[in-house]
Amino acid sequence: MTTATTTTCATVRAYHQARFRGDIPAAARHLAEPFRFQSPLMTSDSPHDHLSGLDAFLGIVTGVDLVSEPYGETEATLVYDVHTSIPAVGTRRTAEHFHLTNGRIDTIRLNFDATPWHAVMQAATSS
Amino acid sequence: MTTATTTTCATVRAYHQARFRGDIPAAARHLAEPFRFQSPLMTSDSPHDHLSGLDAFLGIVTGVDLVSEPYGETEATLVYDVHTSIPAVGTRRTAEHFHLTNGRIDTIRLNFDATPWHAVMQAATSS
Repeated sequence: MTTATTTTCATVRAYHQARFRGDIPAAARHLAEPFRFQSPLMTSDSPHDHLSGLDAFLGIVTGVDLVSEPYGETEATLVYDVHTSIPAVGTRRTAEHFHLTNGRIDTIRLNFDATPWHAVMQAATSS
Repeated sequence: MTTATTTTCATVRAYHQARFRGDIPAAARHLAEPFRFQSPLMTSDSPHDHLSGLDAFLGIVTGVDLVSEPYGETEATLVYDVHTSIPAVGTRRTAEHFHLTNGRIDTIRLNFDATPWHAVMQAATSS
């Protein structure tokens, strides 16, 4: 690995671990400003907004299995399976692409099949 | 890059390019047997079955923009946007994870939000 790739690896791993243990301040330290988050269900332009829903999300996560984590000099893509406690959602394969500038994450592109989430979200907002 | 990473990069790029130009024999040469393909909409256990739907798929693809391509020694994840001619589907962000054994691709995990595809497929099968 080059020095830049080692930095990317350390930053993305630290962010990933902090986020899934619910440590918002530790996760936020690895995010840059300006920041851009995109997923099939939502977008965000600030680290604070992006992490503000973390507690609710972790409340339905029962486990995470990392499938793959190749790293480049300024980017990485983690592929992992998120196990949830919601039967209709089940296990969601997720691919999360990170772009870094000056050692911090400035863009996250989260990718998963959101199909089962729509009915769950509709039920939650109409109940 | 290590020699193994260089081989992975060359193989995955060659497969990606052959596939999107519709060259099934060239794409197939990079796939191993046994082979496993998983996506939100389908799975396949053979290179032949996996590539048999390629012509129909390319018929609705109007362009592909590669976002990211980090490579490891035996794996890679391409992130790209697929532009389609189907308005309800539009542009689909896709993350494709490849695992290689002995220089050939033995596993592909394709990840995208399949939400708009369900209505399109239902309309196609009921028409």
